Amino acid sequence: MTERILIKNLSAREDGPVTVAGWVETVRDQKKVQFIVLRDETGAVQLVNPAVRELTDENAGSAHTLAVTETISGLAHGTFLSITGELKHDERVKLGGLEVKIGSLEVAAEAIPETPITSESSLDKRMDWRFLDLRRPEQNLIFRIQTTFEHALRTYWVENDFIEVHTPKLMASASESRAELFELDYFETKAYLAQSPQFFKQMAQSAGFGKIFEIAPAFRADPSFTSRHSTEFTSVDAEISWVDSHEDVMKLHEELLVAGFTAVKEKHGAAIAELFGIDLEVPTVPFPRIPLAEAKQIVADRGYVIPRADDDMDPEGERQISAYVKEKYGHDFVFLTDYASSIRPFYHRRHEGDPSLTNSYDLIYNGTEISTGAQREHRIDVLIEQARDKGMEPEELEFYLDFFRYGVPPHGGFGMGLARVLMLMLQQQSIREVTYLFRGPTRLLP
Amino acid sequence: MTERILIKNLSAREDGPVTVAGWVETVRDQKKVQFIVLRDETGAVQLVNPAVRELTDENAGSAHTLAVTETISGLAHGTFLSITGELKHDERVKLGGLEVKIGSLEVAAEAIPETPITSESSLDKRMDWRFLDLRRPEQNLIFRIQTTFEHALRTYWVENDFIEVHTPKLMASASESRAELFELDYFETKAYLAQSPQFFKQMAQSAGFGKIFEIAPAFRADPSFTSRHSTEFTSVDAEISWVDSHEDVMKLHEELLVAGFTAVKEKHGAAIAELFGIDLEVPTVPFPRIPLAEAKQIVADRGYVIPRADDDMDPEGERQISAYVKEKYGHDFVFLTDYASSIRPFYHRRHEGDPSLTNSYDLIYNGTEISTGAQREHRIDVLIEQARDKGMEPEELEFYLDFFRYGVPPHGGFGMGLARVLMLMLQQQSIREVTYLFRGPTRLLP
Repeated sequence: MTERILIKNLSAREDGPVTVAGWVETVRDQKKVQFIVLRDETGAVQLVNPAVRELTDENAGSAHTLAVTETISGLAHGTFLSITGELKHDERVKLGGLEVKIGSLEVAAEAIPETPITSESSLDKRMDWRFLDLRRPEQNLIFRIQTTFEHALRTYWVENDFIEVHTPKLMASASESRAELFELDYFETKAYLAQSPQFFKQMAQSAGFGKIFEIAPAFRADPSFTSRHSTEFTSVDAEISWVDSHEDVMKLHEELLVAGFTAVKEKHGAAIAELFGIDLEVPTVPFPRIPLAEAKQIVADRGYVIPRADDDMDPEGERQISAYVKEKYGHDFVFLTDYASSIRPFYHRRHEGDPSLTNSYDLIYNGTEISTGAQREHRIDVLIEQARDKGMEPEELEFYLDFFRYGVPPHGGFGMGLARVLMLMLQQQSIREVTYLFRGPTRLLP
Repeated sequence: MTERILIKNLSAREDGPVTVAGWVETVRDQKKVQFIVLRDETGAVQLVNPAVRELTDENAGSAHTLAVTETISGLAHGTFLSITGELKHDERVKLGGLEVKIGSLEVAAEAIPETPITSESSLDKRMDWRFLDLRRPEQNLIFRIQTTFEHALRTYWVENDFIEVHTPKLMASASESRAELFELDYFETKAYLAQSPQFFKQMAQSAGFGKIFEIAPAFRADPSFTSRHSTEFTSVDAEISWVDSHEDVMKLHEELLVAGFTAVKEKHGAAIAELFGIDLEVPTVPFPRIPLAEAKQIVADRGYVIPRADDDMDPEGERQISAYVKEKYGHDFVFLTDYASSIRPFYHRRHEGDPSLTNSYDLIYNGTEISTGAQREHRIDVLIEQARDKGMEPEELEFYLDFFRYGVPPHGGFGMGLARVLMLMLQQQSIREVTYLFRGPTRLLP
């Protein structure tokens, strides 16, 4: 490996020789002195070189510095290089109070001297050049936050004896609905891309795995172009046995989020404040819970009429109920519970005394839905009846229904969109900003 | 939640009231006493019930026990139930030296009284009923081991400042070769399923992410039916900047494996010995490294002629070289290095002085290849030349080549098949045994 000091570690070092490596962010090529701002994955540092423009009698020994000077003059933005030089702390240097005087410089890969995007570029243009867009410190931080967040969730799961599963993304039939389904030729037959790990998470319950989790891609042939939809997304899923109701699932869910937010605040709180101007709050438990019918009344009382024929909320309704919860409880999260059976899938368990309602919830964070959870119907006869009730043919669900025929404990779980959590946590306008490479109806590149 | 004691925790408890929940493994319905072996995700316990077959004057108060007796007589294998009763340690009980005398019993979900698979069933038949097959303690252990192994890798990565990425599985073009590529209709165009995250891992290097990892599905339309191929598999990937050669990648790779094996041995070593009869060894570093040409000579000297026209190894050659390494170095792993350019992809970097060889390796574990790694060619002009050399049109690779045009540090990485590692670690005959739901040319269900 190139023995280099990460730039974030320079400030704690004493003055002396160092090697750093990264890419050129800016070059100021002044007559007598040249400055490079060099960035690596941890920060930026100013490099300085006293320019030697020609060899004269007075500086006949400066051939090396002349060569370095000429190299710097020709450096394009984005070129990767490693340099060895003298670190010097100097309060007058704006960038971190230090600079490195270049001794030797090695160009690892030249960039072409063209910058296809600027800070003014549209989101779509930035997506075209995502690998350059990701060089921005904000973007780098987003994916460090993602890493920390996911690791905190997984650590919670592992410490609580969950099993990690990798469910197949190639299926013989739909996992959710026939709409929004990607189909592909699969040898002599057809296959479909999993819209969620739903059926396979539930299979783990019949398999006696008890508690399982998965973070993996899911696919929806969703033609919409909103700021929160994509055709491929990272789904955070958990499913647990022996629940009494969706309350047990919500309890798990909020504990997980607390673990995730705590880790992110601890590791990146200062950087989030600096780069995003956000003082990240770790939510308190329990999160407020409001039955959907009550939430709709609250929204109506605030003067907003939900323009939907079915029993569901709409995005503005979700913003309104979030605003209410924030005013009333000072909380960024709210579980909307007990959705109507008419707008929930057949596998959601219905209320014992009132089959028009389900043991389910949506989790709303800062006005946007990030997750759906529920207790599942595990009684085979009721499950078949509910499938029929939704106009489905039990014959098409045979492989799934078998899980229940051979015994399954009561269970429940949730699926959560990773990008939505990050988008809302960092107050971004679109999941495109927090997705490594966004996929939409017209976007398959890069 | 059903408040239950996990069965593994019973032995440490004092005699007294407990609730346990799980599924019925066996019932012995004797005239005077009934025994159930109940299993949960952590173990099995014997439940006992003094049978009451009818109410007489002498046991007029035993109506409840009569009901329990009749329920037990009707219990099918696989039925999930929770029971509350009295725990009693008793050395005479073979199964763990304890039993629970049933007080009350609640059936959560009855199973149908049919057992489609037995311990004699073929692998293919067991795959048909995978959710029942997974109830075996060996299978449960496999996925606990998987969980521990992956968490140890991720913990290593996180502690070493790697960034976790989720690269898209939907692509506009092939990531490896046009062969073995799944194609799907994607709105107005076609998309392809990623055969590996190769291009996108490299993109992170140009994005200045430094070090990244991903564990995610990859897809190959591979028509073969061997014990180590599947159409969908979990790929363990890492990619790092500023490598000097593939040696830096191998160093990372072996450290990761040591971290993974250490965690598995610590947490599951005893269970692996008990259920698989294996004394798991944590490999020592460095793993032996043998250039491929030398390895082929060694294999030839052992009397095996590799029946291939190209420069590659074959599976028997890999077994032979592994046997040699085991005899000579007592090691289960070996890096075969410096593969010929003719059998490596265009993006592997070639030797500085000898372009017929690459800075690449395969990692062989107990006779089977589990991984390929390499330093990548990061110099755009050389990269284009190498693509042409492989008969590829640089025009088709434009989005990928752009990563290099705008600067990229020297880098390298590897991809490793998770199921292969587990298969070899646990001496299983097929990756089907260690894959949650196997996918092959004729297998999309369940």
